[in-house]
Amino acid sequence: MDQKTADVNFDSLLRIFTVPEGPDSTLTQIEAKLSHNLNHFLREHIVAEEKPLREIEKDFSSPAIPEQPQFVSDHTQHLLDTLVSHSVHTSSPSFIGHMTSALPYFLMPLSKIMIALNQNLVKIETSKAFTPLERQVLGMLHRLIYGENDAFYSQWMHSANHSLGAFCSGGTIANITALWVARNNALKPQGSFGGVEKEGLFAAMMHHGYKGLAILVSERGHYSLKKAADVLGIGQKGLVAVKTDSNNRIVPSALKAKIAELKEQGIKPFAVVGVAGTTETGNIDPLRDIAEICAETDCHFHVDAAWGGATLMSNHHRHLLDGIELADSVTIDAHKQLYIPMGAGMVLFRSPEAMKSIEHHAQYILRKGSKDLGSHTLEGSRSGMAMLVYAAMHIISRPGYEMLIDQGIEKASYFANLIEQQPDFELISHPELCLLTYRYVPSHVKQALESATPEQQSKIHNLLNELTKFIQKRQRETGKSFVSRTQLNPIRWDERDTIVFRVVLANPLTTTLVLESVLEEQRLIATQVPSLMHKLEEQCAKVMKTSHA
Amino acid sequence: MDQKTADVNFDSLLRIFTVPEGPDSTLTQIEAKLSHNLNHFLREHIVAEEKPLREIEKDFSSPAIPEQPQFVSDHTQHLLDTLVSHSVHTSSPSFIGHMTSALPYFLMPLSKIMIALNQNLVKIETSKAFTPLERQVLGMLHRLIYGENDAFYSQWMHSANHSLGAFCSGGTIANITALWVARNNALKPQGSFGGVEKEGLFAAMMHHGYKGLAILVSERGHYSLKKAADVLGIGQKGLVAVKTDSNNRIVPSALKAKIAELKEQGIKPFAVVGVAGTTETGNIDPLRDIAEICAETDCHFHVDAAWGGATLMSNHHRHLLDGIELADSVTIDAHKQLYIPMGAGMVLFRSPEAMKSIEHHAQYILRKGSKDLGSHTLEGSRSGMAMLVYAAMHIISRPGYEMLIDQGIEKASYFANLIEQQPDFELISHPELCLLTYRYVPSHVKQALESATPEQQSKIHNLLNELTKFIQKRQRETGKSFVSRTQLNPIRWDERDTIVFRVVLANPLTTTLVLESVLEEQRLIATQVPSLMHKLEEQCAKVMKTSHA
Repeated sequence: MDQKTADVNFDSLLRIFTVPEGPDSTLTQIEAKLSHNLNHFLREHIVAEEKPLREIEKDFSSPAIPEQPQFVSDHTQHLLDTLVSHSVHTSSPSFIGHMTSALPYFLMPLSKIMIALNQNLVKIETSKAFTPLERQVLGMLHRLIYGENDAFYSQWMHSANHSLGAFCSGGTIANITALWVARNNALKPQGSFGGVEKEGLFAAMMHHGYKGLAILVSERGHYSLKKAADVLGIGQKGLVAVKTDSNNRIVPSALKAKIAELKEQGIKPFAVVGVAGTTETGNIDPLRDIAEICAETDCHFHVDAAWGGATLMSNHHRHLLDGIELADSVTIDAHKQLYIPMGAGMVLFRSPEAMKSIEHHAQYILRKGSKDLGSHTLEGSRSGMAMLVYAAMHIISRPGYEMLIDQGIEKASYFANLIEQQPDFELISHPELCLLTYRYVPSHVKQALESATPEQQSKIHNLLNELTKFIQKRQRETGKSFVSRTQLNPIRWDERDTIVFRVVLANPLTTTLVLESVLEEQRLIATQVPSLMHKLEEQCAKVMKTSHA
Repeated sequence: MDQKTADVNFDSLLRIFTVPEGPDSTLTQIEAKLSHNLNHFLREHIVAEEKPLREIEKDFSSPAIPEQPQFVSDHTQHLLDTLVSHSVHTSSPSFIGHMTSALPYFLMPLSKIMIALNQNLVKIETSKAFTPLERQVLGMLHRLIYGENDAFYSQWMHSANHSLGAFCSGGTIANITALWVARNNALKPQGSFGGVEKEGLFAAMMHHGYKGLAILVSERGHYSLKKAADVLGIGQKGLVAVKTDSNNRIVPSALKAKIAELKEQGIKPFAVVGVAGTTETGNIDPLRDIAEICAETDCHFHVDAAWGGATLMSNHHRHLLDGIELADSVTIDAHKQLYIPMGAGMVLFRSPEAMKSIEHHAQYILRKGSKDLGSHTLEGSRSGMAMLVYAAMHIISRPGYEMLIDQGIEKASYFANLIEQQPDFELISHPELCLLTYRYVPSHVKQALESATPEQQSKIHNLLNELTKFIQKRQRETGKSFVSRTQLNPIRWDERDTIVFRVVLANPLTTTLVLESVLEEQRLIATQVPSLMHKLEEQCAKVMKTSHA
């Protein structure tokens, strides 16, 4: 409702579809501030210290849809006070716990244009030029991965009956799409059997005489693959975890053995997922080796490069993903290291024919022969997010992205060295890309761990886990900086459950000074939990007594 | 890159994360124009006459990621010329062929704030207050459908281990989520069987001794349900179509008979989908009758109210969806009749326990007991779209939405009358909500159809189908107005394939004058295809000769 009247009548309703607020309105002013300096706006409006969730929930406790309209300006102020102030400053240089980082400023006004155009990419009728644009974006990513020649792209990129991939809301939908395609291609029509897409999984299994299906992935695979196995009717047990080495990379011989084992049990392994940038440690599977095994064993080879795929933009580091060009499909999230706002994932297929197995049509849209994108996507209605990827590719360009990727990797390497130089920190996983894990271990505890018995070690580790949790939480609540945490099972520590800090260094605004102060703050927080530190000391004293005895 | 230099160096890269363009830049100016008057901006920048898709594709034919950065202003101009100019004016009052209509202006700046905040709603750590906000939005929609009391919402809305539904990118994902939950609940753990989510569909069928699974829906169900049946491993054949009556509503006795028939075949019907606003005709299934049948036959009752669900906002018309409160789950799209930008769907579940069957956890997020939204969604990373629904609910309020819904229904009723008054138009489906279908039938053809033999009728219908297609395409290409088209099988015309114009009257800016001119234009276009009109006349002449003989 506009500022003059908050009564509901049809004329005032029409106004909200036509007449924007005046230049003095709260919303207009806020937008201007945001346009002028985003970081300043966020620093000003997001409160640093964390309010307990229970307190925040009180502001969002009414399930009733209001019977009275609110003034736009009043409601904007309400949003600032209750929502924006208690949101997460994802673009802050010292918030290094997520894969979400700062956004290039030009994407904000472009996003507004994209939203105002309100295109629906499910079909050409509601998206026109956005459809070829999205096809080009998919072509760009396809070429980045597979590097086919120009003839290939001029033949397939805009072909009505083919698809180089699908743009979607994120990596999870991308992974599900890839495995859906893989499943349907593994169980396609044959003789009297109409294919799994028509007849379902049960009929498919009966036809082939399989006792089950399996997708193989390293122990470090993303949790979304479990969801995919569930949704696709394969079952979570059908997602088979394969052993990793001390660098969190899948062990090819173990993969091969597992595939053979499954086949002996009458289970059909139809897909292997290679991870290019694990979520928790940032490591990359030996993709070329996996590709070879997949070729030998007739498995679809999918690479989950949701996070690490952007590394292909760097000519200096793309060799780390060597073999990705052999994958049948690849997931890349643009909202991670391509610096696009939330909600932009992609899956690419090497063969333009691959997605035929999930093609679908309807009477009023997606008619056969149309170029409607919706005939090859899991989602239906979709926004024009591809425009933002397109714009960023042109404005930042490949060498620009290369610099962003390179600086992240360099910074992670710097931080890893810094951690290793500290007497009271322990690097847990070395960064291959811009992600690493570590923990705080007071120097006397480090020493004690060296000579402790396995039982003593276990006790100390449990205390350290508590300490890591405490530090991570307190640091987040204080609001100055943020690292995330996860649980690993490092070989160095006999695969014990080990809670670690996890850091992602994608934000180009993060300086080495920030990194130093993150460690400093963690060291300080440790002193704020004397009870825990005391228990650790006691435990270490015991170790020293035993080992000196 | 900023205007001063388009070379790539790290300093200039950092600038794109910090320093916005000056007030004179193209992007800033465009944004200001757009903020000042959106409709004017769109009218000015979107060209009316349609450029052939092949021509547009030429602008989007390069699969190479540029090696040279572009100036923001240059690229913005490029986007205006190639993309915006050939996008679809979805908010135009005379574009009445889609479910996408005008947006309230205040959502544009709010979207920009949402995007700048770049929250990830998969977990609290990256969304904080956005998580309780989204839970409230789900609570609001839940209450709109199910109308539980305050105690219910204060117990469940923010409960860590429960969920009233899921916010997602659109109706397709919402429908898939509902049927995923339904499938898993129908095949849950029992004795030694660990449940379909763990053991997969094949093991589940063996355990229960079923020969197949089925989802039942009327012939008018949305095409996304076929996708759902495919993805979930049920197979498209498992999506069983049930007969509809002359008003495109499912026939309850036919549903009952079909369920019995399936059971006799050893097939387990586990879900029935009622449609509340079919995509093609806007009709609503007899929800209360379906609910009763579902209760008797132990089926999950899902209502696909992606489009029609917003009708619940109108106290005058919500009775049309009578019985929806008996559904186990309901899909509603906010980007349809709740006037939210593209990419906002929801699925709601009557029982806060329902989604337990798809709950999932991970080590680094979604830990057990956390309130992370991601433990109950098909998607992973998601944006803060729920904020826009929340704001619109408060600024427009329930009575405001009521007016919007009511005006659409009234307008459709007006247009239906107008069509029926024309000697040369035929109303094919009467509007129950704000959607109707019709076609152009010259008056002498109407007359001829009355006395034609079935064979003659068939020939005339085929010609009319060609004519409808021609008019719809030409009208779209001319760019003054737009209606969509689909194919129906009206009982009045012996269920012959009948191509029709389809109109959705949700845009509050569409006037009766616009409706009159749409008909006028269609009548005019018909005269531009003399060959077809001539063939029709010939055919009619034959009829007259036979019937007079």
